[in-house]
Amino acid sequence: MSCAAEVIITGQDSEPLSALGEFGLIAALSAWLPPGPRTLVGIGDDAAVLATPDGRVVATTDFLLEDGHFRRDWSSAADVGHKAAARSLADLAAMGAAPTALLVALAAPPDLPVGWARELAAGLAAECDRAGASVVGGDTARAPRVLLAVTGLGDLAGRKPVLRSGAAPGDVVAVAGPLGHSAAGLALLTAGLPDDPLVKGHLRPAPPYDAGPEAADLGATAMIDISDGLLADLGHVADASGVLIDLASAALAPGERLLTAARAVRGSGRDAFSPARTRTAPSPGGASSPDAAQALRWVLTGGEDHSLAATFPPGVRLPARWKVIGTVLAGAGRSGHGVVVNGQPWTEPPGWDHFAQDLA
Amino acid sequence: MSCAAEVIITGQDSEPLSALGEFGLIAALSAWLPPGPRTLVGIGDDAAVLATPDGRVVATTDFLLEDGHFRRDWSSAADVGHKAAARSLADLAAMGAAPTALLVALAAPPDLPVGWARELAAGLAAECDRAGASVVGGDTARAPRVLLAVTGLGDLAGRKPVLRSGAAPGDVVAVAGPLGHSAAGLALLTAGLPDDPLVKGHLRPAPPYDAGPEAADLGATAMIDISDGLLADLGHVADASGVLIDLASAALAPGERLLTAARAVRGSGRDAFSPARTRTAPSPGGASSPDAAQALRWVLTGGEDHSLAATFPPGVRLPARWKVIGTVLAGAGRSGHGVVVNGQPWTEPPGWDHFAQDLA
Repeated sequence: MSCAAEVIITGQDSEPLSALGEFGLIAALSAWLPPGPRTLVGIGDDAAVLATPDGRVVATTDFLLEDGHFRRDWSSAADVGHKAAARSLADLAAMGAAPTALLVALAAPPDLPVGWARELAAGLAAECDRAGASVVGGDTARAPRVLLAVTGLGDLAGRKPVLRSGAAPGDVVAVAGPLGHSAAGLALLTAGLPDDPLVKGHLRPAPPYDAGPEAADLGATAMIDISDGLLADLGHVADASGVLIDLASAALAPGERLLTAARAVRGSGRDAFSPARTRTAPSPGGASSPDAAQALRWVLTGGEDHSLAATFPPGVRLPARWKVIGTVLAGAGRSGHGVVVNGQPWTEPPGWDHFAQDLA
Repeated sequence: MSCAAEVIITGQDSEPLSALGEFGLIAALSAWLPPGPRTLVGIGDDAAVLATPDGRVVATTDFLLEDGHFRRDWSSAADVGHKAAARSLADLAAMGAAPTALLVALAAPPDLPVGWARELAAGLAAECDRAGASVVGGDTARAPRVLLAVTGLGDLAGRKPVLRSGAAPGDVVAVAGPLGHSAAGLALLTAGLPDDPLVKGHLRPAPPYDAGPEAADLGATAMIDISDGLLADLGHVADASGVLIDLASAALAPGERLLTAARAVRGSGRDAFSPARTRTAPSPGGASSPDAAQALRWVLTGGEDHSLAATFPPGVRLPARWKVIGTVLAGAGRSGHGVVVNGQPWTEPPGWDHFAQDLA
């Protein structure tokens, strides 16, 4: 297959995918996506074969949809590749696993330029490289818009998987990675401010993959990746564990970058996120300005940072990148308020529901 | 999660998916899709964990798209579930692996009835059951049309994976499972003849999963599943192995059911498949009538039967379900004619290319 792929790599970026045909595209993807050390059979056969010396494999599938999760006028093809990979790879880390492989199903319009697919593959490969994984297989189809369904496979290396259901009263809650950066970045893009550095947090979230196995080794009792928002995702932990999680707003105080972004979005007059709430709602969590309130809202309810939130037994000494943000209390997780902030229910929507809300 | 799912199971089939919300749908799917013996962590956490005692996992991803691979007015939700599962599970069998698990990414319109999703899950579970697998995870999203991206995982149980590249001159070519039934079924549906028994071959292909490990144990040198058409898929084997494959039309003579279907489609006056070719092309492979020619065309170029084609060393005694259809010869697989019929190139398009042709 490498012969056909060489031709493509050295030239026809502006040609449409339909000029390659399905098998030409698969041959090209095979050349653009190098196998990894665990790839026993890679792209190009009926299926891939991956080494799983642990005797278990961790597996997850995630969609990334054009005009749902990304816009082609905002995201480069490489951005889309990074983000598509990150969504699945972060799920593996949140189980305490090291990512090993991706399978990528790509549906695309036939007039998509070959160069776009090449850059997408480069983004996928680069994000895999950050995580220690490689692309081992996939599928292609035509569709009116770009759509990816990415399956991640990972390795526990003898660790017990860290579930959502193990949090116990007395545990501390900690987070590794940024909160609210993706939501702030999306708000900046929506406001016509694409040059703010936080925009990258939306286009290319960079999950701290190795923090997942690290947390497992430290004895984490529960873990989840922040894909729908801190409150929503910790709500899943509270529900599954039958506990109440109490967050301390002081530990979640937005940094200067988020405050600056909130100010810029408000100043643009194009705050598409929550203009009504920003003007009329009382400042949540005791925030002292509308900008601080908006920034805290991004921290608590913004999704897609793919940072990791975990609970640890009391007394565990955590590395610096794990920031303690709350504690686990006894209490019913089914009350509708499985997560509280400073002991009080958070009264705004906690996060994202793909079927109940319009996609951005 | 079972509590929320119970409510759904006992009632709201006519409600739209949007009434459940994303998390309600996931809870429901979790209840509809029972875990299997190798499921260590199933649906509902960040990722699934599957036992892989062999120390390797076989993995494949396939799309199934509404109005591409199926039509909701022709296929029931259960049909779609069977077919979506079969596409991936057959790929695993074609490596010589026993299927163990599926991950199902489902995008659907928010107004899709809950009952449709429930029947889809039942079809997925039933086809998994045929193969010895179970659904262990997935994702949901909203989209204008139903779309599934299904990842299959399988187990080699110590076997060497059977690749496309191992066919050698002197080997025999054999097939397990029907050929042309799916194409005939699609033609019957297109012709407005949904009651012919072959229609089921299109709506619910039933791959002979256990023939895959059986072939591996018999020493198969190469194997592939028939998804794009016999000529196209054996062409991949010929290319990868650097050989020529010669099929014997006598061994591929269409049975009475296919001939009857071809006659019925022609009689309907609604042969949407190839009216021009049927009338003007010379009868291929020496077929003695337009119906025999059409039926042979289905056998040679019809996709989606998901039967298994394999090459075996000469002298291997094959079980009855493996029908010998040709031989492997020395020769270049890159000539554009890696597969010949009775020693002659087949001059019609050999099969399916998703980007070069319109989807049905």
